[in-house]
Amino acid sequence: MTKEARLVLAGFGNVGKAFARLLLQKENELREEHGLSFTVTGICTGSHGAAIDPQGLDLAQALDTVERTGSLTSLDRASFLGNTLDFIEICPGNVLIETTPVNPRSGQPALSHIEAGLARGMHAITANKGPVVYGYQHLTRLAESRGKKFLFESAVMDGAPIFSLFRGPLLGAKLLGFSGILNSCTNLLLERMEGGETLTQAIAYGASIGITETDPSNDVDGWDAAIKVAALVTVLMGYPLTPLEVQPVGIRGITPQQITQATAQGKKWKLVCAAGWDESGQFYARVRPETVGPDSPLFAVTGTSSFVQFKLDVLPGLGILESNPSPKTTAFGLLSDVLYALKEK
Amino acid sequence: MTKEARLVLAGFGNVGKAFARLLLQKENELREEHGLSFTVTGICTGSHGAAIDPQGLDLAQALDTVERTGSLTSLDRASFLGNTLDFIEICPGNVLIETTPVNPRSGQPALSHIEAGLARGMHAITANKGPVVYGYQHLTRLAESRGKKFLFESAVMDGAPIFSLFRGPLLGAKLLGFSGILNSCTNLLLERMEGGETLTQAIAYGASIGITETDPSNDVDGWDAAIKVAALVTVLMGYPLTPLEVQPVGIRGITPQQITQATAQGKKWKLVCAAGWDESGQFYARVRPETVGPDSPLFAVTGTSSFVQFKLDVLPGLGILESNPSPKTTAFGLLSDVLYALKEK
Repeated sequence: MTKEARLVLAGFGNVGKAFARLLLQKENELREEHGLSFTVTGICTGSHGAAIDPQGLDLAQALDTVERTGSLTSLDRASFLGNTLDFIEICPGNVLIETTPVNPRSGQPALSHIEAGLARGMHAITANKGPVVYGYQHLTRLAESRGKKFLFESAVMDGAPIFSLFRGPLLGAKLLGFSGILNSCTNLLLERMEGGETLTQAIAYGASIGITETDPSNDVDGWDAAIKVAALVTVLMGYPLTPLEVQPVGIRGITPQQITQATAQGKKWKLVCAAGWDESGQFYARVRPETVGPDSPLFAVTGTSSFVQFKLDVLPGLGILESNPSPKTTAFGLLSDVLYALKEK
Repeated sequence: MTKEARLVLAGFGNVGKAFARLLLQKENELREEHGLSFTVTGICTGSHGAAIDPQGLDLAQALDTVERTGSLTSLDRASFLGNTLDFIEICPGNVLIETTPVNPRSGQPALSHIEAGLARGMHAITANKGPVVYGYQHLTRLAESRGKKFLFESAVMDGAPIFSLFRGPLLGAKLLGFSGILNSCTNLLLERMEGGETLTQAIAYGASIGITETDPSNDVDGWDAAIKVAALVTVLMGYPLTPLEVQPVGIRGITPQQITQATAQGKKWKLVCAAGWDESGQFYARVRPETVGPDSPLFAVTGTSSFVQFKLDVLPGLGILESNPSPKTTAFGLLSDVLYALKEK
């Protein structure tokens, strides 16, 4: 019994390309072990053109062409002209894979892309957390009304199982709270500062290896972490929360002196995320720098790794650690969602 | 759409009772959120009698009765006489919950209990790892031939999602190896030795709080850990491995001097489990004491907590930490398996 994924790829940056490579790598395994065959019917990019082929694009050729020529248009069989939203409106397929650049303050245009995909009757799978924070309930209802899935495993901690954990293995458990390190960029910056760099120098290093963006404030000021906290709380605790309500405190105020002092005490500064209900039943959600000692599971979360520890009514502490993520890790989260969407249809 | 679990409880020790309490605690939630109603049609113990009631036992009364009188027989409506195997042969139900004491060298009598339950057309769910190590393939085939499930989430790391992770969220990923701390008893003993106790004193303390058994060699000599390694390798890597092949090295050889020396270097001794394929494609599996520093995720695994880090083809390091387990944690693993078995039927 073979299921066919006809995949519509909106976005073909690092993550989109890693997803394409993972599909090629796992083609036989997916067919033989999971009864899943796939076709990519279209790829749309922001500045490298788009290509639609209802018979299925040659994915290896697409990767090679965009690498060599900087444009996909030579592979287009549909004389496509338009933007990503137009592309989603006309490209044939049953699963939308959404990995376009997103505005962290609005979740757009990813939110509209997903809405359009679902409205057309496709499953919608995204690596973006914006649409989760700004549209979870609306998009989930829309998906349900079409008998489709809106999935986003890669939105928090890349491909590490978080959302899928709660819809499967943790069914029957209630989430009471969590804490952890959800922004890998600041985790790396603080580590560089422990090595003697100023924040500015650490940011420059981060930019040189592609970890920090030109405007690093989204990470440094705690907004990326706050969006992830809001996503976890909204989806897993059924408590709609916006990043603004988290009122994040970033790492800009951490001085080299504070770093030195912590090191002298055998401690490390970490940007710690936490949310939940406290003893008195009061809800809290925060992102702020804290020092942690070697007996904390956060201490060994180094480099771009991340960690979250869940407090559940039946498991006092369940920690998930993701070490050394890469775009391939994120790509796996997307693939895992594809398998779930087509299994559950 | 309500599913009904008619539960047959073989074993009513700490874990069996914790499972009964969890059922009572979650009765409404299970019905309202998961469409699952349950009846316990029978409970069989080794030395506190047995009770069968095809209409369903009053679970709160059963817990109270065994606590107060030391015997369940006053609740029996079937004039039951016999051992646990006889009980499984005649007690009506659709899910067997197996938590009887097990011989770690043979997996018996748990293995026979599960075989009997499956042969009668029940799903078989156990908290025992013995049947997994000594009967995984046979019992899984038997279950499949009846359209039933053989499940054992609680066999390794109590209720933390391990096996369920691989049949759900990690579908599409290949496990290449793992390392971690799987025996919580030795982890606690080593911690007590860091506090200045000898191994003998630490074992006496462990016995006083119910962590170590009268004969602690199963834990101290690494056999419990080796059985868990064998279970993970057999089930998750598709490589049938026996505990003997692991050739475990326990913690008996660790001297107070070695502990002091490690502490002076800022390190800790841990009983580390590991298995996988090395760079040259050679398979390895081991249990042995190792020192770890604060940058290792094993360093902060204190007390009776446990941790495993998986190396997958798509996730370079996925760690699962379970902090402060209790019989309730193990009970949740059983409940999680019940939900899965009845969902998938």
